[in-house]
Amino acid sequence: MNAPHTPFNQTAEVDQAAVQPLPNSKKIYVTGSRPDIRVPMREISQADTPTSFGGEANPPITVYDTSGPYTDPAVRIDVRSGLAALRAAWIEERQDTELLADLSSEYGRQRAADEKLDPLRFNLTRAPRRAKAGANVSQMHYARRGIITPEMEYVAIRENLRRREYLASLKASGPQGEKMARLLTRQHPGQRFGAGIPEEITPEFVRDEIARGRAIIPANINHPESEPMIIGRNFLVKINGNIGNSAVTSSIGEEVEKMTWGIRWGADTIMDLSTGKNIHETREWIIRNSPVPIGTVPIYQALEKVGGKAEDLTWEIFKDTLIEQAEQGVDYFTIHAGVLLRYVPMTAERMTGIVSRGGSIMAKWCLAHHQENFLYTHFEEICEIMKAYDVAFSLGDGLRPGSIYDANDDAQLGELKTLGELTQIAWKHDVQVMIEGPGHVPMQLIKENMDKELEWCDEAPFYTLGPLTTDIAPGYDHITSAIGAAQIGWYGCAMLCYVTPKEHLGLPNKDDVKEGIITYKLAAHAADLAKGHPGAQIRDNALSKARFEFRWEDQFNLGLDPDKAKSFHDETLPKDSAKVAHFCSMCGPHFCSMKITQDVRDYAAQQGISAEAALQQGMEVKSVEFVKGGGKLYDKL
Amino acid sequence: MNAPHTPFNQTAEVDQAAVQPLPNSKKIYVTGSRPDIRVPMREISQADTPTSFGGEANPPITVYDTSGPYTDPAVRIDVRSGLAALRAAWIEERQDTELLADLSSEYGRQRAADEKLDPLRFNLTRAPRRAKAGANVSQMHYARRGIITPEMEYVAIRENLRRREYLASLKASGPQGEKMARLLTRQHPGQRFGAGIPEEITPEFVRDEIARGRAIIPANINHPESEPMIIGRNFLVKINGNIGNSAVTSSIGEEVEKMTWGIRWGADTIMDLSTGKNIHETREWIIRNSPVPIGTVPIYQALEKVGGKAEDLTWEIFKDTLIEQAEQGVDYFTIHAGVLLRYVPMTAERMTGIVSRGGSIMAKWCLAHHQENFLYTHFEEICEIMKAYDVAFSLGDGLRPGSIYDANDDAQLGELKTLGELTQIAWKHDVQVMIEGPGHVPMQLIKENMDKELEWCDEAPFYTLGPLTTDIAPGYDHITSAIGAAQIGWYGCAMLCYVTPKEHLGLPNKDDVKEGIITYKLAAHAADLAKGHPGAQIRDNALSKARFEFRWEDQFNLGLDPDKAKSFHDETLPKDSAKVAHFCSMCGPHFCSMKITQDVRDYAAQQGISAEAALQQGMEVKSVEFVKGGGKLYDKL
Repeated sequence: MNAPHTPFNQTAEVDQAAVQPLPNSKKIYVTGSRPDIRVPMREISQADTPTSFGGEANPPITVYDTSGPYTDPAVRIDVRSGLAALRAAWIEERQDTELLADLSSEYGRQRAADEKLDPLRFNLTRAPRRAKAGANVSQMHYARRGIITPEMEYVAIRENLRRREYLASLKASGPQGEKMARLLTRQHPGQRFGAGIPEEITPEFVRDEIARGRAIIPANINHPESEPMIIGRNFLVKINGNIGNSAVTSSIGEEVEKMTWGIRWGADTIMDLSTGKNIHETREWIIRNSPVPIGTVPIYQALEKVGGKAEDLTWEIFKDTLIEQAEQGVDYFTIHAGVLLRYVPMTAERMTGIVSRGGSIMAKWCLAHHQENFLYTHFEEICEIMKAYDVAFSLGDGLRPGSIYDANDDAQLGELKTLGELTQIAWKHDVQVMIEGPGHVPMQLIKENMDKELEWCDEAPFYTLGPLTTDIAPGYDHITSAIGAAQIGWYGCAMLCYVTPKEHLGLPNKDDVKEGIITYKLAAHAADLAKGHPGAQIRDNALSKARFEFRWEDQFNLGLDPDKAKSFHDETLPKDSAKVAHFCSMCGPHFCSMKITQDVRDYAAQQGISAEAALQQGMEVKSVEFVKGGGKLYDKL
Repeated sequence: MNAPHTPFNQTAEVDQAAVQPLPNSKKIYVTGSRPDIRVPMREISQADTPTSFGGEANPPITVYDTSGPYTDPAVRIDVRSGLAALRAAWIEERQDTELLADLSSEYGRQRAADEKLDPLRFNLTRAPRRAKAGANVSQMHYARRGIITPEMEYVAIRENLRRREYLASLKASGPQGEKMARLLTRQHPGQRFGAGIPEEITPEFVRDEIARGRAIIPANINHPESEPMIIGRNFLVKINGNIGNSAVTSSIGEEVEKMTWGIRWGADTIMDLSTGKNIHETREWIIRNSPVPIGTVPIYQALEKVGGKAEDLTWEIFKDTLIEQAEQGVDYFTIHAGVLLRYVPMTAERMTGIVSRGGSIMAKWCLAHHQENFLYTHFEEICEIMKAYDVAFSLGDGLRPGSIYDANDDAQLGELKTLGELTQIAWKHDVQVMIEGPGHVPMQLIKENMDKELEWCDEAPFYTLGPLTTDIAPGYDHITSAIGAAQIGWYGCAMLCYVTPKEHLGLPNKDDVKEGIITYKLAAHAADLAKGHPGAQIRDNALSKARFEFRWEDQFNLGLDPDKAKSFHDETLPKDSAKVAHFCSMCGPHFCSMKITQDVRDYAAQQGISAEAALQQGMEVKSVEFVKGGGKLYDKL
């Protein structure tokens, strides 16, 4: 793809798989207080209930949509020109930023001037932007001054999924609609462990949560293409998908494809963890084409700049890397500023030492120089950079456990405490912060992680990798970790970093990315249900209703992965007629357990009274008729 | 396969995939108090630690082995003759059973006499066995009379995994072995929610738990081929795999293959849920070749006998079916005796009604006749049959929820309370009991299920299907349910019934069976870790040590699925040399986080003092040497 005679930047094409419409789905936009606040959602239409089950119309279901313009048939996608800069006007209007004549980073300028890179380079014509001298452009800064930004309003609309309007119009449609609204919105009370989730998210609530530090909107002013989203425990649980090449494998095109594939299936943010060739150029392509926030670990690139020798890293090189990436538009940086010199020896007796790449780099630097971690000593300077572009901190857990053996040890918890101190410093600068967490933790120790994070980091959003709940299943660590992720999400974790089936074994390909995303999407949703997040159960209820009524296509389409559900179904019952069959391959027609309930309901309907009352009455006198009526229900099949 | 000219019972062959040796694994037998108590385990050998990491020998790891003789190269497997009857002598010795001249079941005799079935029939030459008149042959009955059966001793040995002897010999081998034993056995304290797990399982403890009703050994006297295993919350968490044909699909050979494939990957019991053709003959082949207990839902077959019309079911037909299956050797029966007439109307307002096939059959029968469930009214007669063969009850949850919407409702909990009453009746007869549980339950409602079960059913072992924690991921319900299964296992559930990726969509094939088994095996293990089950962490620790030391093959082999782990690794780094590479494809050589810890340790070793002390000292004066030493560690690669 990168051969000299076919320059990548002329031939690059969007992955066709990423722009296919999702079945029976429509992109809708909910407009906010101004016409340029247009919040995308996905509306999944449903078939009517079969007449044998009542024949009512089933309303469309609205779901959160991370896929950006790729799934909007009205948008022409060309990865060579990138996405539209939907936030550009909002950023300009604030009049606290300026366009720069040139990149501020020396390395950035070098790369821009290197003709050998021309074929690889994304042709961005827009100038980089930075806060005016002395200005702070972070969402937290605005929030603390009482300003509700368009970004805040956008995420408020997004989180609500227009539930109120939808239910109101359903109820207004008559008794049938009222019944449907009641059915869809019935939800079990949640267990919230102190989370304070309102029935409806208002822009003011968003502002308040951001001001308080309990939520962040990662939204670099140089990534105006991003659709704002919020990370905090009083909002929907989010998930992150990691992509990135390594020295061993992968190209720019593949990484862009992984990003578009990941957001199609539900990635709320993407981290580009590239450590191989052309990291700078790869990142540019990803950001320009990403509607979701992009996170990075800048120390990876800094290490490449010093030929892989951790001891040669300097604050100056690192600082230049931060600025380089901030001016490209990275929305959050993992910064391993909590790996303190005194914690490093605590890892010597571990089973698996330091498993965070960033953590190991900083530990090596500390040992080599016998100096305190320069990310820690220069932390306030880092804050100055962050607030000039609104890059959020993702304070890295460089000492996270790499095995069940090492879970919740002194090194890990010591670092977490330090991250709490750094949070206070960042907040002093009005810089947005989230806190990274483990890793490998057996179930009974997961809650301690969440509780300590809330306490020590003063409720800054927690962002964890899994955690994996056992080490004995390589090849299935998306599942060992989804078990832990669902739990910590329930306890209050705001964002779950996915783990793919390839974890510990190899780099994920596109299939692995999808498997990881869907696995984490379902874990995050299980957490939302457990917290009793308002409206979370609507999709479950709609899918269960479709399942009960043998609306197979609706069952597939309401699920997280319609393609797989359909192909699994077709393996056993491939004929189209089976899609309307009132039984399924698991049981066959004699054993269909769904039928009996319909018998019960039909009987009730005949009596013209409530199902339960009818049954009580009917069972006393009419058991013979019931047998006759029920036995004929499915004769037509 | 069943074509007339190639009789199945002459051509049937074992699935070759099921008899391949597992990599670096050896079948071992631990002998009990008598030579015919030979308890199988799997010993996984390990490579030495690479010299750069210390070069020590790594001891073999012993793991629980459900695969039976299939993985013993010394045993010649012929599915046409079935497995050896290892328990035959134990059963005979007790002198409380008698061989029958003919089958007691009328249906069984009909099938035996039907010449058309000759080509399909497993040729069992052994006569059926039954308790002598008035005798009770249940393990619970023996336990309550203070008798420790060979079966009880067998499971005690099996649960311990010879841990004490293994660690003693390791410690006796010198300081290196002592260190290794310390490393391998370090384990986090568990959270047990009232479980009382001893450090070592004795035969007397097993007897006591069975007498108390807190555990069962499903061990029909007509299934002498089975290797005893125990189900109870003070033992290792077990998993069940479902197989079975339906009217739509599958053959006898396929079902036997699913069984041998399921036990290879860890199924502790198998349920044969066949509802299609030749259920009787299919079951015979499965039982004769199964080293694990087999469970069934007899009502499925009874329904086939009445042409699929639930209302035509009678106690007599059902009773004959119980006896038919008991004399084949089924180890536990799901009996939906808790679906009471008064609970059925409670399901009318559900989202998904009654989803249990057995539950729906009984509900239909109750409604049609307006009579109480005959399984309930004849429960004591069922107990009489159970104790004559030692079939255990799996009291079915016919009213389990089929959606998040219906979780923990009155119908479900009402039935559970009834199951508690039935447990007391069964125990009065010294019949072993476990209780089936849901289903679809959001995380915050799972614990209520476990707590109520323990209370209402007086700690009889709980056996749950999942539960699924969300309904929005068809195609991934092995994962939505593994999240719930791990949790309920932690809370005290004794056995987890697997869910495959095909749940709700189709019948599982062999791949799905494996995916389901491994997923549940890891969930059960995560639960064991969370409970702090003694020794549970040894395998995690060994695998983590292998991971840290880049012993790739050991990492694969110690995992639940060596084949998949190896193939995933080889996708990215296919060369054999990569198996000894001291870095991996995820990070490449520059970013290997494992290296820094080794640097730390090596430095410590040079100082001849403990790693932590050395570092504290070294960092103060020798940072320059550290850089030199550490930098060279991997030069040879």
